[in-house]
Amino acid sequence: MSIDAILSHIDDEIPNAIDRLKELLRIPSISTDPAYSQHCQQAADWLVNDLRSIGVEASKRETPGHPMVVGHFGDSGPHVLFYGHYDVQPVDPLELWNSDPFDPQIEGTPNGPVIRGRGSSDDKGQLMTFVEACRAYKSVTGTLPCRITFFFEGEEESGSPSLIPFLEENADELKADIALVCDTSMVSPGVPSISSQLRGMLKDEFTIHGPRIDLHSGHYGGPGLNPLKEISRIIATFHDEKGRVAVENFYDGVHEVPAELLRQWENCGFDEETYLNSVGFTQPHGEEGYSALVQQWARPTLEINGLWGGYQGIGSKTVIPAEAHCKLTCRLVGDMDPDNVRAALRKHVEDRLSPDARVTWDSDLDGSPASVMNIDRPEFERARQALSDEWNREAVFAGMGGSIPVTRFFTDILGLDSMLIGFAQDDDAIHSPNEKYNVESFHKGIRSWARVMDKLTNY
Amino acid sequence: MSIDAILSHIDDEIPNAIDRLKELLRIPSISTDPAYSQHCQQAADWLVNDLRSIGVEASKRETPGHPMVVGHFGDSGPHVLFYGHYDVQPVDPLELWNSDPFDPQIEGTPNGPVIRGRGSSDDKGQLMTFVEACRAYKSVTGTLPCRITFFFEGEEESGSPSLIPFLEENADELKADIALVCDTSMVSPGVPSISSQLRGMLKDEFTIHGPRIDLHSGHYGGPGLNPLKEISRIIATFHDEKGRVAVENFYDGVHEVPAELLRQWENCGFDEETYLNSVGFTQPHGEEGYSALVQQWARPTLEINGLWGGYQGIGSKTVIPAEAHCKLTCRLVGDMDPDNVRAALRKHVEDRLSPDARVTWDSDLDGSPASVMNIDRPEFERARQALSDEWNREAVFAGMGGSIPVTRFFTDILGLDSMLIGFAQDDDAIHSPNEKYNVESFHKGIRSWARVMDKLTNY
Repeated sequence: MSIDAILSHIDDEIPNAIDRLKELLRIPSISTDPAYSQHCQQAADWLVNDLRSIGVEASKRETPGHPMVVGHFGDSGPHVLFYGHYDVQPVDPLELWNSDPFDPQIEGTPNGPVIRGRGSSDDKGQLMTFVEACRAYKSVTGTLPCRITFFFEGEEESGSPSLIPFLEENADELKADIALVCDTSMVSPGVPSISSQLRGMLKDEFTIHGPRIDLHSGHYGGPGLNPLKEISRIIATFHDEKGRVAVENFYDGVHEVPAELLRQWENCGFDEETYLNSVGFTQPHGEEGYSALVQQWARPTLEINGLWGGYQGIGSKTVIPAEAHCKLTCRLVGDMDPDNVRAALRKHVEDRLSPDARVTWDSDLDGSPASVMNIDRPEFERARQALSDEWNREAVFAGMGGSIPVTRFFTDILGLDSMLIGFAQDDDAIHSPNEKYNVESFHKGIRSWARVMDKLTNY
Repeated sequence: MSIDAILSHIDDEIPNAIDRLKELLRIPSISTDPAYSQHCQQAADWLVNDLRSIGVEASKRETPGHPMVVGHFGDSGPHVLFYGHYDVQPVDPLELWNSDPFDPQIEGTPNGPVIRGRGSSDDKGQLMTFVEACRAYKSVTGTLPCRITFFFEGEEESGSPSLIPFLEENADELKADIALVCDTSMVSPGVPSISSQLRGMLKDEFTIHGPRIDLHSGHYGGPGLNPLKEISRIIATFHDEKGRVAVENFYDGVHEVPAELLRQWENCGFDEETYLNSVGFTQPHGEEGYSALVQQWARPTLEINGLWGGYQGIGSKTVIPAEAHCKLTCRLVGDMDPDNVRAALRKHVEDRLSPDARVTWDSDLDGSPASVMNIDRPEFERARQALSDEWNREAVFAGMGGSIPVTRFFTDILGLDSMLIGFAQDDDAIHSPNEKYNVESFHKGIRSWARVMDKLTNY
């Protein structure tokens, strides 16, 4: 059976594939907010049914949080574990969406049609590229090309609290030769990319407490400690004037990018101007002396993701609030240790508190170190060839600014290397209002997986 | 008729007076939020009916905002204009209230019983001290002691947008010999106080805009400008390390307190330790080199009243938000000009913006300069004697950290001096959850007004 028949079937089936994706997108499976837990169940059920429809022995597996979906097909040939996540980010601020985030539609844009809706790119659309490739194989050949374990989680956007225990309890069942992950972007539009290194992540959250109660800014303005001023002053000390994180010991384990890798990256097709201009920037704003690409892929960050306190309503309120709150994440590189970074950060804040101020920390937030992929394995070169064939452009090994903690757990718990191939674009607005996935990414993504599976099996 | 009969009637009537106050407190007349405008109408109607019940010719007067209540009684003798406001602050954060803010109850506390509820102290409870004193006079003597114009507004907590036009259009009707205002505190529990100077206020609000859309902190963390970091950095420049406002030209028009006045203040019964400790502070946090009292009464401030941006929900969201917001107020002293302060502040922010960041300002927020009362008028000494008699303790002329802009407008538009007498306490939690008014403040406040009116009439 030639791959061409499968690719041709994929082309014919695209309208139906889009309809199936829309069905999945209509389920508001926001994992971080307990109000949506029934919808996470519903998305898992939908996937179980869909996998069964192509002959996969699939089941929903309960956890203390949202369920996992596990499916098995075949018992011979190369064995891949395919990972994706069915949960999505919250949609706030809802008023900035131009359409219902959970009523996906196809929209024309200057760069071609897109599927608009929460999860279209991260990660339901990407996940379904693989499932649709399998469906095409099944339709045309009556079987799948190799032995496949499907593994979908529903807590990726909320720190994956059930992932490690589940992997540990089901390690024998989940073991394979290599893991495939579809949750990453292309370096630039049209440049097929395999992610070769990922940043890690550390999440934390703190509250600055000042007065015992909210105060009137007339009665206490002046003598009163204002937690909003206090938190601003402390956050302002997180970076120096060159954009470098000013927390002591923060950079322990950070290495400069080797010259040879830097040269490869400079030729990987990344378009700094488009990357910056597309979101309204004229220059990179990270550490001085590094390109936007290196700032994104190979330098650590300390970002404030949420900051609040006092009155946010209409009009004015003359209040000195009792508390101020900050959510933050650090992206980690090299050998940075999440626990050490957390300790350094907390010490930094505690050392800078004014008298009468105190800080409390949210203790439930996780961390994971950076990852570097094992690109010397033969599967990487086979996949690179398959992607180059599909996109008619040399595929590249690229860094990545995001964090996919699951790859680290696959290594540590299952002893599995991961290969990350994704078709998202920088302007997909993942985690933002008006998330989209290019129809081209979806269509050629499906074709790409068909070719990759073919090459992994028939090398 | 001796004052004693009136005071005795007040004592007998206290349970009924409390019931009437509770009725008024049950009306959620939050002026800053348009959702409550019908309740502002309802509070105004309640007051019109209550004034009519004691023989005052009262009416509700519509404005483009919330209505005024105006009432007249008598045509001879000294003529006072009594001012109060029936609107209240918002109640957020609602979850910090121990009871429904609009279901007032009497609670026992170590310092005696209190009336708990929004507006109990600011200003419905205080306003009703004067009305109840009038009611007692009417019951016992069949008339009121002097000529009185009652003037209640419903926009004091939202910048009084209708006040100036209303005063200008009705100046002839509202003119009197002196204005009485009951919206202030006692220097310390049990120390009757006439406020002799007030701080002014300038309100402003700004938004820092960074990227065109919310960004993913993996894709753009590093190269992306984060408005939450930007706003924190800028707010941190508002003060220097000695607690002084670091905005150029901010202190234009600020004068040091004259030595003689400072000496009076030092002996006025203000208890710095109680003032600070009662809300959780061990030391004053304003400008170095000034006592808490001077920081509160005679030094200007720049306070952040609201700060927000990014994700505030449960869990984590790896977002770099497009915007960050800040609400602020400055308390003004001496000859500080609100327009000049606003211009200086805006320039300060604009001069410090990073490339690719921009700022927008809310243009609807007002300002008013500081006020000094004309305490050489004979009415002040008569009131001081009346208060000293009631509280069995020498009454004092005190400064005040808050702002009562209406006194400035009475001077400018009606040519009226104001006398500010109030019975609130520092721990009343006005503008905060669990606002209260001591029953003693209410009871002795009513008796105090009866004595003051008696002294103003029969001197």
